[in-house]
Amino acid sequence: MEFVLHPIGIIHSPFTEKEQTPIQASRSQAIGLVELYPEFAEGLKDIEDLSHIHLLYIFHESSGYKLHVKPFLDDREHGIFATRYPYRPNPIGISTVRLVSRQGNALIIEGVDVLDGTPLLDIKPYVPDFDLRTDVRTGWYETRSKE
Amino acid sequence: MEFVLHPIGIIHSPFTEKEQTPIQASRSQAIGLVELYPEFAEGLKDIEDLSHIHLLYIFHESSGYKLHVKPFLDDREHGIFATRYPYRPNPIGISTVRLVSRQGNALIIEGVDVLDGTPLLDIKPYVPDFDLRTDVRTGWYETRSKE
Repeated sequence: MEFVLHPIGIIHSPFTEKEQTPIQASRSQAIGLVELYPEFAEGLKDIEDLSHIHLLYIFHESSGYKLHVKPFLDDREHGIFATRYPYRPNPIGISTVRLVSRQGNALIIEGVDVLDGTPLLDIKPYVPDFDLRTDVRTGWYETRSKE
Repeated sequence: MEFVLHPIGIIHSPFTEKEQTPIQASRSQAIGLVELYPEFAEGLKDIEDLSHIHLLYIFHESSGYKLHVKPFLDDREHGIFATRYPYRPNPIGISTVRLVSRQGNALIIEGVDVLDGTPLLDIKPYVPDFDLRTDVRTGWYETRSKE
């Protein structure tokens, strides 16, 4: 079984090298630009009323994967599905960013953590009722070796 | 440009009809089973130490999309990217669920909100440092017509 996906736009960011890229959106204050292809612009109606959105995208510079990896924040190996490491069987990333403003088919965002030119797959609203969990245990992340 | 994705497993749930399916994982206490294909089982190492995980999957019974939709929780039309409606240009869903236990290549989860047989694309750890946002405005969702 396979599924074919087509990007709906491009994420522009200040990061042109993997080494420069922040480890996660919540640690970044970088400003980025989501350029939606014009044929999808109508799908942004009312998005300007949201403060935060999820971006789903392809890790386009990550090809191949291993099932055990050393994530950026630790010196121990963990299963790929217990980490956010970008080399994954399906190289899809999620970042939650602050929506600064909308200009037609473009969104100005704060907290971008992806490479410039990243292919965008989807935008979803961040809704605490759906997305926020408390009483969370994060396993290795709580005893990680790096900050 | 296109990207071809292959499922890494199947999500089993009590919901065989779309009409029965909860609107979001946070409103569901239903128990489900994530069956990872055996060749990916090693990728689950250390996942049992996490309390919550994100599941990324294909809305396999949603084909086609419109750019303006009436979401389940409102009587007004909004842009598809301002909603979590399942008929999307790239029909990918995210659910955040509680991980109850791991049995080999299977995960018992609580709070499942997807149709039985849903093709699984990825599993990621839920990490508040990355995923939790406060001071959130949710636009139409705050004045929605349905609970």
